[in-house]
Amino acid sequence: MDDDMENGKGLSYQERSRTFPSMRSKSYTPWIFRILMRINARVLFVLLLLVFGAVFFVGANTSPIVVFVFSICIISFFFSVYLTKWVLAKDEGPPEMSQISDAIRDGAEGFFRTQYGTISKMAFILALVILGIYLFRTSTPQQEASGLGRTTSAYITAAAFLLGALCSGIAGYVGMWVSVRANVRVSSAARRSAREALQIAVRAGGFSAIVVVGMAVFGVAILYATFYFWLGVDSPGSMKVTELPLLLVGYGFGASFVALFAQLGGGIYTKAADVGADLVGKVEQGIPEDDPRNPAVIADLVGDNVGDCAARGADLFESIAAEIISAMILGGTMAQRCKIDDPSGFILFPLVVHSFDLVVSSIGILSIRGTRDSGLVVPIEDPMAILQKGYSVTIVLAVLTFGVSARWLLYTEQAPYAWLNFALCGLVGIITAYLFVLITKYYTDYKHEPVRMLALSSATGHGTNIIAGISLGLESTALPVLVISVAIVSAFWLGHTSGLVDDTGNPTGGLFGTAVATMGMLSTAAYVLTMDMFGPIADNAGGIVEMSQQPESVREITDLLDAVGNTTKATTKGFAIGSAALASFLLFSAYMDEVSSFSHIPFKQVDIAVPEIFVGGLLGSMLIFLFSAWACSAVGRTAQEVVNEVRRQFIERPGIMDYKEKPDYGRCVAIVASASLREMIKPGALAIISPIAVGVLFRILGYFTGQPLLGAKVVASMLMFATVAGILMALFMNTAGGAWDNAKKYIETGALGGKGSDCHKAAVTGDTVGDPFKDTAGPSLHVLIKMLATITLVMAPVFL
Amino acid sequence: MDDDMENGKGLSYQERSRTFPSMRSKSYTPWIFRILMRINARVLFVLLLLVFGAVFFVGANTSPIVVFVFSICIISFFFSVYLTKWVLAKDEGPPEMSQISDAIRDGAEGFFRTQYGTISKMAFILALVILGIYLFRTSTPQQEASGLGRTTSAYITAAAFLLGALCSGIAGYVGMWVSVRANVRVSSAARRSAREALQIAVRAGGFSAIVVVGMAVFGVAILYATFYFWLGVDSPGSMKVTELPLLLVGYGFGASFVALFAQLGGGIYTKAADVGADLVGKVEQGIPEDDPRNPAVIADLVGDNVGDCAARGADLFESIAAEIISAMILGGTMAQRCKIDDPSGFILFPLVVHSFDLVVSSIGILSIRGTRDSGLVVPIEDPMAILQKGYSVTIVLAVLTFGVSARWLLYTEQAPYAWLNFALCGLVGIITAYLFVLITKYYTDYKHEPVRMLALSSATGHGTNIIAGISLGLESTALPVLVISVAIVSAFWLGHTSGLVDDTGNPTGGLFGTAVATMGMLSTAAYVLTMDMFGPIADNAGGIVEMSQQPESVREITDLLDAVGNTTKATTKGFAIGSAALASFLLFSAYMDEVSSFSHIPFKQVDIAVPEIFVGGLLGSMLIFLFSAWACSAVGRTAQEVVNEVRRQFIERPGIMDYKEKPDYGRCVAIVASASLREMIKPGALAIISPIAVGVLFRILGYFTGQPLLGAKVVASMLMFATVAGILMALFMNTAGGAWDNAKKYIETGALGGKGSDCHKAAVTGDTVGDPFKDTAGPSLHVLIKMLATITLVMAPVFL
Repeated sequence: MDDDMENGKGLSYQERSRTFPSMRSKSYTPWIFRILMRINARVLFVLLLLVFGAVFFVGANTSPIVVFVFSICIISFFFSVYLTKWVLAKDEGPPEMSQISDAIRDGAEGFFRTQYGTISKMAFILALVILGIYLFRTSTPQQEASGLGRTTSAYITAAAFLLGALCSGIAGYVGMWVSVRANVRVSSAARRSAREALQIAVRAGGFSAIVVVGMAVFGVAILYATFYFWLGVDSPGSMKVTELPLLLVGYGFGASFVALFAQLGGGIYTKAADVGADLVGKVEQGIPEDDPRNPAVIADLVGDNVGDCAARGADLFESIAAEIISAMILGGTMAQRCKIDDPSGFILFPLVVHSFDLVVSSIGILSIRGTRDSGLVVPIEDPMAILQKGYSVTIVLAVLTFGVSARWLLYTEQAPYAWLNFALCGLVGIITAYLFVLITKYYTDYKHEPVRMLALSSATGHGTNIIAGISLGLESTALPVLVISVAIVSAFWLGHTSGLVDDTGNPTGGLFGTAVATMGMLSTAAYVLTMDMFGPIADNAGGIVEMSQQPESVREITDLLDAVGNTTKATTKGFAIGSAALASFLLFSAYMDEVSSFSHIPFKQVDIAVPEIFVGGLLGSMLIFLFSAWACSAVGRTAQEVVNEVRRQFIERPGIMDYKEKPDYGRCVAIVASASLREMIKPGALAIISPIAVGVLFRILGYFTGQPLLGAKVVASMLMFATVAGILMALFMNTAGGAWDNAKKYIETGALGGKGSDCHKAAVTGDTVGDPFKDTAGPSLHVLIKMLATITLVMAPVFL
Repeated sequence: MDDDMENGKGLSYQERSRTFPSMRSKSYTPWIFRILMRINARVLFVLLLLVFGAVFFVGANTSPIVVFVFSICIISFFFSVYLTKWVLAKDEGPPEMSQISDAIRDGAEGFFRTQYGTISKMAFILALVILGIYLFRTSTPQQEASGLGRTTSAYITAAAFLLGALCSGIAGYVGMWVSVRANVRVSSAARRSAREALQIAVRAGGFSAIVVVGMAVFGVAILYATFYFWLGVDSPGSMKVTELPLLLVGYGFGASFVALFAQLGGGIYTKAADVGADLVGKVEQGIPEDDPRNPAVIADLVGDNVGDCAARGADLFESIAAEIISAMILGGTMAQRCKIDDPSGFILFPLVVHSFDLVVSSIGILSIRGTRDSGLVVPIEDPMAILQKGYSVTIVLAVLTFGVSARWLLYTEQAPYAWLNFALCGLVGIITAYLFVLITKYYTDYKHEPVRMLALSSATGHGTNIIAGISLGLESTALPVLVISVAIVSAFWLGHTSGLVDDTGNPTGGLFGTAVATMGMLSTAAYVLTMDMFGPIADNAGGIVEMSQQPESVREITDLLDAVGNTTKATTKGFAIGSAALASFLLFSAYMDEVSSFSHIPFKQVDIAVPEIFVGGLLGSMLIFLFSAWACSAVGRTAQEVVNEVRRQFIERPGIMDYKEKPDYGRCVAIVASASLREMIKPGALAIISPIAVGVLFRILGYFTGQPLLGAKVVASMLMFATVAGILMALFMNTAGGAWDNAKKYIETGALGGKGSDCHKAAVTGDTVGDPFKDTAGPSLHVLIKMLATITLVMAPVFL
């Protein structure tokens, strides 16, 4: 027996590697990178200079604010290059580590290619549909007179959509690219020092966060500047600058479209592999997590990259893009109503806020330093405290820069103190973000009452554990909703009383106040995204350490980082849904502005006392339930396939358990990949088709019953109810999932009988149920909420 | 070993009975019955005649329609007396059966007394609060001039509230009273023939259904007639008949108030006992359901009576009462707007529809006949088919009588074909009811795909079973929402195009069309309630048979009835939530009418583009999530107490398992009773206090920010969002719970490994989780939705 074990453990990496080559065959770099790499370095440099020059030329012709934004984006670009170089300079550890890491990378890149292949095909079809809709929509004489022909507007929207989709795809790719490279470097560093491992994970996360946020800002800015320059905005006879942001909605929709499928596909992938691996490995066979004997373990580790890194990158990208565009629309509308002389400050404010975000977050990331003298072994500090310190630095700087931006851009002589009110709105947003993080922590951290009670309920069995977890999740929606309610009302009133009035003397700043609060909430997005990316990188590093069978001390370090990663992941989910909730009202108002602008009919009210509009709300809420159902059942079904495959391998290769035979990791990867691609289509198509179908249906009904704008109004109510239901459902799912996970971890610390007890088994069941909640359905709902808003913005002409 | 078993099995009932006396001590009859029973029979007869005379005198002075309603109610009263006599004339079986039945009865009556003691105290306090609010509210000169002083209106509302609460309590008591008496008679009859057992259960259920529906109709009718007579309605200088229904809202609120606490307390009781009994008995000890060795078994059987019978009685009572009152309000408003000469037809239409409901349902109940020749043993027929046949009879008759009522009451010369449109609205409602029943059956019956897939997912473990069940539940919301959406829009348009127009020529019948569709849906309520009551009676009978250790053949019969009962329970829940969904829009409109009438400010729109109103919606949806959380966690916590108690008894009395020692049933009953009384307060208080708090808060905010009616509008949006979220959540919970239950039953038929397999264990976990979903939180949500509507109706003056 001992000999057997020895034999198994002693397998050299050459032997072990035999299972991997099947996945190695398809090394992959996207064509855009391949082309760039083939070009001579000097030519590339000249090209880059030319591009930068052109960008600055266009920017300089638009507004000095745009030049400022461009400069920050380019500096951030160089900063991110520095971060990558720094991370990649670290060693990849011994060959057994890099071998596993290569397998993960190949699995992730293979899935990414197939997934984005499918997504890009769908995006092209949708772009054609959008083009068709915009080309053949009826347009009023006023629209034609505004200087923008139907054809131009059609091409602009379709192009913006494709650009948004492309950028969102790149954001996802970058997130995954760095994470599959950083994981092994973190594992390797963990052999030396916890602090160094932490720093690598943070900087790798920071790289993709900076790229994601930077690209969202840069993309919107360049579209804005190009349209401004090309269409000759603000010159006599052409369109006004306040109407320009409406042309950008395609970009937001493109971003959400890709993010939705990225999150769905990735979320299904990661959790199906995880649940499948756990159900057979942990529950049936009793082997630890990430044990090399489990055939699904590589698929699980691949899942962390495609599900958490790639998908979250795309998700945050579209959050920021959608939020910037809606705030620009609202800023433009308000500036127009108030007849402000230079409206560009109000329109470009979101871009500046997010530029400062890049700066303050970079400082926050840099504030997390490694040890200066690497020769000395430093005692392990609490990594959470280190990350928190960085967050505090970022948040303090964000408050200051927010105030500066508000004074710079929002000062107007008509209302000299308006900027102060708006700065306070930003503060409301920042406080909201902070409270969301606190509340999520309270409900998901096992230091607090709720998770402890949940762990205790596992003592009476699987059933009571599930009931308690569901109750906990449902209950956890209450405080965030109260916070958001106070934030919306107070930001609205701060804006309302800012002194900005329209022609007739009515205060008009309310909605913009809400928009500024959302910006405040997102003003530390890059740092928050860094913390979020940190999680899956640390998780992967832990997996590599476990699989390459490193000594206990190394595992301890990665376990510690992994635990912190779980907390940061949960809190950033709270942050993401909080910003979605705050942004929802904004996107809704932007939609109403968009409809008014298209139809030239005032669209000020969505009256739910009208039966059709109420039905729209009913359908919207139902959409959330159905979407969640399909997302969860996709995971369940795929996990069942994994379970059957893993069981089959254990039966057909009985030597696996004592390390005599090698499991076929590749088959599990292939099964999960093809299943998740298949399963992401149904919920994704539902999300895209149903608002369009409802809008068109009620447009026709409205036509026959003589109710103008009925389609648009029903869609508005659908959007609003779906947003509310989506926020609650996402909060419920994220928190319940996180709490179950941590209740299990709490029991694993030795409480209530510890690992292997009946109590622990019940807690593992809870964790399994929580997996699709917190990593598939929950995050997909964030994207869904925002995608519904952008799809209605873009498809508005169909509903009229 | 065999000897031990023999000893245990051979315990005589005298020995077994030793554990019961502790509960027998408190025999209880409500004081009202005790007083009635002390009166001499002849005196009682004379008194009854006098009361009937007075009622008819008042009725005759109001409208011939009211006389018709009264007559039907009184005939139904005698019919229900006949049904009771028929049921009570059946034998109670051998002493071991009646002993168990007595223990159940005592437990149920004891809990009922304590529970309703608490509820009645709260109701009195609330009545004083209502009185205070109405006495000190500001009233406009117009209101004073309308002939109804502030004081009168205050006393009327408080008195109606108390009457509603009393009637709702009686409805609950009657449901329980008959069920604790019928259960043992069904068990006893099951020894002879399945058909006879079925007939007893149906007639017992029919008795309480007729009483519940009859009392709802009679209560509203008598209040209407009394106010009409007393206030001299329609005479010059006093109020108009079209305003009269607004005085009845207190009745509806009283009914919902009691129903909410009855459903919460009963629901927590029944499921805590059930979950607790199952977790230790079935899962840990592996003994069958309702095994006499399980100390929690009596508590479980008591729970069926207090949770299902008493609570469902109160629930349906308030559904019908609330629906009648709102339809009367809308009928009145419409009649006034259209200046119809005799508006009483439109106002009294709901009362007539429900009177016909009593008649057609009675025929349906009578159509289920026993065997004529009791000497012959008849083969067992499918009881579901028999019940379905009765339902078909009822539904056909309902369609006919609905048409007759529409022609009789809704014919007006202004729009000669309006009655036909409204009859079609009724048909829409009846079809909706039928579709709801079909959809629920599809998702919860194991003959169909969804439950089979759910059972299959249990093969891969507890986790996948729960994920699949939750997905199934979430998905099952889609079709009902589509049906309801079509029903609302089509009923509205049928009403809208009925030809009824107001002064300015605008069509006004739309809302009333929706109201009529709701009536159509509820037009077979008494028969549906009969089928629902059938479930717990059959369940109890099965328990008594199991506990008194009857031969296998008897158990087979009761098992068959129990299985049918599960299906009817699930389908009637679908029916209940469908009617709540359809009624929601109605109650909402009634609220807007009420606010307009109080404030004399037109209140036509609830515009969710206003931030405060949107926040109201957010809070309303959150209320549903929080309420569900608290209801579920109450069950979880109480079940844990039961589990610990049962485990303790098994440890302290090791002889229980081989029948040598008797478990202490009474302690479990006492624990569950006191825990559920404690636990029902928190969710109940939340439901009542939060709409009032939100209304008052935003009223104050509206005052300071200069927005008139803000409180009322925010409450309206809260109500609407809560209704939508509540419908979806209730559908999700009911269906998921039912599907889990039946997936377990499917496996118990021998599929996928059958009883005792790992697959079965996973299915039992699902069933345990589903228990609080389908019998505590789900049904409480039905009541909550309607209570929110009635509380806002009654509390409207506070929000203005």
